[in-house]
Amino acid sequence: MIETCSLKTHRRNEMIDITSQVNGVVEKSGIETGLTVVYIPHTTAGVTINENADPDVVHDILLTLERLIPQHDPRFTHAEGNSDAHVKSSLVGPAVTIIVQNRKLLLGTWQGIYFCEFDGPRNRHFNIKVL
Amino acid sequence: MIETCSLKTHRRNEMIDITSQVNGVVEKSGIETGLTVVYIPHTTAGVTINENADPDVVHDILLTLERLIPQHDPRFTHAEGNSDAHVKSSLVGPAVTIIVQNRKLLLGTWQGIYFCEFDGPRNRHFNIKVL
Amino acid sequence: MIETCSLKTHRRNEMIDITSQVNGVVEKSGIETGLTVVYIPHTTAGVTINENADPDVVHDILLTLERLIPQHDPRFTHAEGNSDAHVKSSLVGPAVTIIVQNRKLLLGTWQGIYFCEFDGPRNRHFNIKVL
Repeated sequence: MIETCSLKTHRRNEMIDITSQVNGVVEKSGIETGLTVVYIPHTTAGVTINENADPDVVHDILLTLERLIPQHDPRFTHAEGNSDAHVKSSLVGPAVTIIVQNRKLLLGTWQGIYFCEFDGPRNRHFNIKVL
Repeated sequence: MIETCSLKTHRRNEMIDITSQVNGVVEKSGIETGLTVVYIPHTTAGVTINENADPDVVHDILLTLERLIPQHDPRFTHAEGNSDAHVKSSLVGPAVTIIVQNRKLLLGTWQGIYFCEFDGPRNRHFNIKVL
Repeated sequence: MIETCSLKTHRRNEMIDITSQVNGVVEKSGIETGLTVVYIPHTTAGVTINENADPDVVHDILLTLERLIPQHDPRFTHAEGNSDAHVKSSLVGPAVTIIVQNRKLLLGTWQGIYFCEFDGPRNRHFNIKVL
């Protein structure tokens, strides 16, 4: 079973908590123990796991990525003006694999799953496979 | 079968070789061919695979991460003072997936698995799933 | 079934599209739905997923990585002169997991799989597991 979820992003750089959507798919699958893969089929977005409590953590992560990889570099040759987003996508990564136990994601207490938008706002989607 | 291993870290930034613990779990599982996922349930730590021979490689990786992402940035808003650790956690990643062949991790000759501490010292743990 | 593919890299930093090789292994496996793991058994290379249309994207990704992580840093202690490649390997990552649907990789329209060489030219290989 592969589930596809849609979402709309609202800023150029944004991290959106998708934990409850992923947990919903895991519960629906009825799988007791196994793995879940969350996969992003875009080249200017990614997925990561990080703190779900204080939104300032997300702020500081996005700030640091923008400091390290500014949108414009005079040496960039890709004409679309979003090379920074492609770099961030490869550094954060297109997929996360999470262990499933007792029909639930085995996340740490403070962990949430985040869809990472690096070239929004856009209509996006992601795929979830439980096995 | 999901195994949980504990470890104690001793410095703020540290990479600890956990290859033998992971290999032990793989051998115990009796699984001939498949996958192993090592998952870190913390938001200021991560897991990576890198050289297991010369400890200077680990030194240079941690040095570079600290140069790129210093602990303090006047624009950080997260009050705990460990935003750098959250960023490193997302860049290094919370999980690695390794192929299993003949009841062993199919690692390259020079590869070891490292628990990456970015906000130690702390008591930590990680989960291993073989399937 | 685990397949091993070989490739030859030609520059110190290079991203080589291996999508067709991975898709070939998936089709040959006959597996309808599941996961594919591409695993790099080297500590100065990695694997990522990014745009497969405009080669300037690859140019800008490699440029940014070289800007952030130059080959030489007077504080590096690893004597082989390739510490930068080890750092890039851990940031980009040694493995990607992709969902398989209808005997094909469920990649986004613009996504290709890239072997990332960071210390070439060298003879390299990578492993593919479909399950």
